[in-house]
Amino acid sequence: MKSYNKFINIKQKNNSLLAVGLDTDINLLPISIPKTFDGMLEFNRRIIEATKDLVCAYKINFAFYEQFGLDGIEVLKKTFELIPEEIFTIADAKRGDIGNTSKSYAKSVFDYFNADSITVNPYMGNDSVSPFLDYTDKFVFLLAITSNPSSMDFQRLYSDNIPVYQHVINKSSQWADETNLGYVVGATHPEELKTIRNSKPNRVFLIPGVGAQGADSKATIAANNNGLAIINASRAVIYASKEADFDCKARDMAEYFRKEFLL
Amino acid sequence: MKSYNKFINIKQKNNSLLAVGLDTDINLLPISIPKTFDGMLEFNRRIIEATKDLVCAYKINFAFYEQFGLDGIEVLKKTFELIPEEIFTIADAKRGDIGNTSKSYAKSVFDYFNADSITVNPYMGNDSVSPFLDYTDKFVFLLAITSNPSSMDFQRLYSDNIPVYQHVINKSSQWADETNLGYVVGATHPEELKTIRNSKPNRVFLIPGVGAQGADSKATIAANNNGLAIINASRAVIYASKEADFDCKARDMAEYFRKEFLL
Repeated sequence: MKSYNKFINIKQKNNSLLAVGLDTDINLLPISIPKTFDGMLEFNRRIIEATKDLVCAYKINFAFYEQFGLDGIEVLKKTFELIPEEIFTIADAKRGDIGNTSKSYAKSVFDYFNADSITVNPYMGNDSVSPFLDYTDKFVFLLAITSNPSSMDFQRLYSDNIPVYQHVINKSSQWADETNLGYVVGATHPEELKTIRNSKPNRVFLIPGVGAQGADSKATIAANNNGLAIINASRAVIYASKEADFDCKARDMAEYFRKEFLL
Repeated sequence: MKSYNKFINIKQKNNSLLAVGLDTDINLLPISIPKTFDGMLEFNRRIIEATKDLVCAYKINFAFYEQFGLDGIEVLKKTFELIPEEIFTIADAKRGDIGNTSKSYAKSVFDYFNADSITVNPYMGNDSVSPFLDYTDKFVFLLAITSNPSSMDFQRLYSDNIPVYQHVINKSSQWADETNLGYVVGATHPEELKTIRNSKPNRVFLIPGVGAQGADSKATIAANNNGLAIINASRAVIYASKEADFDCKARDMAEYFRKEFLL
């Protein structure tokens, strides 16, 4: 099944826009879980078990696994395998390079890890993004305006009276249709989210920044104006408790966000 | 030793600005080398042995290894271990994410692989780059203007009469000094290389695009105007021959480029 359709189906089945981010930090594991690679995987397994009927997606942050080299990649691979087939997966890897290199990154994420989607950095332009889009059954989230404070440094430079991130959206929306290409739009910029949503009513937005990064859920939902969206919360869900019942507390937080994100 | 000093030393010792890019494609291995992961490693070992007195650096393209998952990461790790300690290494990984994530990517590249330097994408701004710069003994090459045709899509948008890539250079040069931060400037843009070099005479530039990507060596050297630079050639060197003497032919090409790059 095309990944886009998988997203539509699970969003409806679980009535949820929530993605839980598996930004699993070995040093922040609950007291009942050993601070080992097996512990990381066990933590992910229990978070997934506890939340899988409340989410539309899991977003897996590659950096948290890559930092441990081979051991981390093994946990990453097994984490993808733990996720039920019906749930949309986001490889949050922020890749992008010249054509033949992006092609290899696409193989890594789409063929080896079998992710449904990937976050891609637009800075290098069309030929750096197209090898990912060539997987027409998969999905690409191109960075538009990110949730971090320094997103203002370059993304908001104005050129011909529109910001760079709007150039990214305008140009790239000609590269692929809405079933293959969407955008990362940080929840920390609700005014801009509103403007971008109005300009692209049919694109899927991946919206990070709610939870630990401090964005307001209600403002985000209002700005998104019922558009197709995946709203991510990572730390606020998975580290809801450090006690033995961490998975129950993660479920409570996931259910809280799931409801918050429904209009 | 600080990686910057390592670069200065090896550049002088080998009298070379050449980096050989280990973009090792398992499908392009010479006929005498098995198309296996051991074969990839053996190929890298022989390329390194044949060229180590002719280069200032090896640039390792992470995508070519990541596409094979665990097996590829193992070859990548062992490839870093094969490189003589005195030679500067470039993790060509083009990473960049919000602060706590970039910190994990920095751990991967600097602590796990023990690379001297990394290529970083500037799109997300200062807080996405600073975790790499926090390793003050290491070195960051920030993408300015890349060698691919689509570099024009966003890097050359003009804002306040200067292109985005020049904003990247102007702003980021305040984040770290020339012993920690340099720029990727594609050899395929000699006019722009000249302008950028004049504006930043003391920064190290990583210059890709010579060889298979078609840039002219002489124009590149003239434009660089004797600045500190690492000029990369990948495919033109490592795939100089598919025969059993591929390492001798790679050496010939490396020596050719080494001389070309000396004024």
